Amino acid sequence: MKKNLGPVNALYPMPIVLVGTVVDGKINYINIAHVGIIDMNTLSISMGKVHYSNKGIKENKTLSINLPSEDMVVEADYVGLVSGAKEDKSQVFESFFGELKNAPMIKNAPVSMECEVIDILNMPNHDVFIVKPKNTYCDEEVLTEGRIDLSKVKPMFFDMYQKKYWKLGEAFAKCWSIGRDFVK
Amino acid sequence: MKKNLGPVNALYPMPIVLVGTVVDGKINYINIAHVGIIDMNTLSISMGKVHYSNKGIKENKTLSINLPSEDMVVEADYVGLVSGAKEDKSQVFESFFGELKNAPMIKNAPVSMECEVIDILNMPNHDVFIVKPKNTYCDEEVLTEGRIDLSKVKPMFFDMYQKKYWKLGEAFAKCWSIGRDFVK
Repeated sequence: MKKNLGPVNALYPMPIVLVGTVVDGKINYINIAHVGIIDMNTLSISMGKVHYSNKGIKENKTLSINLPSEDMVVEADYVGLVSGAKEDKSQVFESFFGELKNAPMIKNAPVSMECEVIDILNMPNHDVFIVKPKNTYCDEEVLTEGRIDLSKVKPMFFDMYQKKYWKLGEAFAKCWSIGRDFVK
Repeated sequence: MKKNLGPVNALYPMPIVLVGTVVDGKINYINIAHVGIIDMNTLSISMGKVHYSNKGIKENKTLSINLPSEDMVVEADYVGLVSGAKEDKSQVFESFFGELKNAPMIKNAPVSMECEVIDILNMPNHDVFIVKPKNTYCDEEVLTEGRIDLSKVKPMFFDMYQKKYWKLGEAFAKCWSIGRDFVK
């Protein structure tokens, strides 16, 4: 039986990212799961207008997107729990910089993108930052034959329903391939 | 050591959805992973302009978003392999309708949203449909204490690097909670 839950967003789980910014001259990180792919090399990061990070992003027009691995769950959750307006989060992670001077990235994160903001969608309660990666850095240890290997990245996912973090499971099929087994 | 991969999108894996439309009077489905959450109840669906589905979405200003479970992988991949302009995909899944007459949903999918299109972002090669769910339907079997239980939904994820589908793993931590264990 189908149950109608009403007009609710049921697009979960989503990958967790840590967004790096410089706000008031200080490095800051926040945990965001309301992300998206806009086109091949354009991403969206949706952040409640109440967040401290937004100010730095608007001033600098840059941010970083870091994919934490599951063993970073305590720190990843922590930077989503406390505001940079009250707590200095600049030392939670060891940071590094690439080309953009206000897009700090996380050394321990297996994958990091330093991004330029190309547009901002002004929603009633959210700033949606439309960004393009300028450079994407990854640990050599998470590559297999030159490509990012998600079994090594060990990303985590956010579940709004049960308020849980989930691990990635196993790869089980090839894209644009297994569908050929479909017989009408 | 960090390796710079250049300006590439590394926001994977992303959840797979099946987008339902009516095009030229016929039900159609396509597999899309370039999705996003814009604000709490607003979603983005990015679709290459070459796709047949886009025409129906633009005409009707409606679409559905269905989350397939991992046991639907063959059909899910199939509807991403072949174009509705050439193949009739209306019978790949058994469909049902809610309030919106041009947003067919998939009976076998554990979670389906019938959505209204509120805006379209015109990217060089993609139409990005900004949508709001009108109603969200789910199988009673995937609920635990009235909430969607992802261990029962068994969603799947798309990996652009290795062209693989991945399963969801286990829940391993509580959100807005485990971060309290962080001690500076």
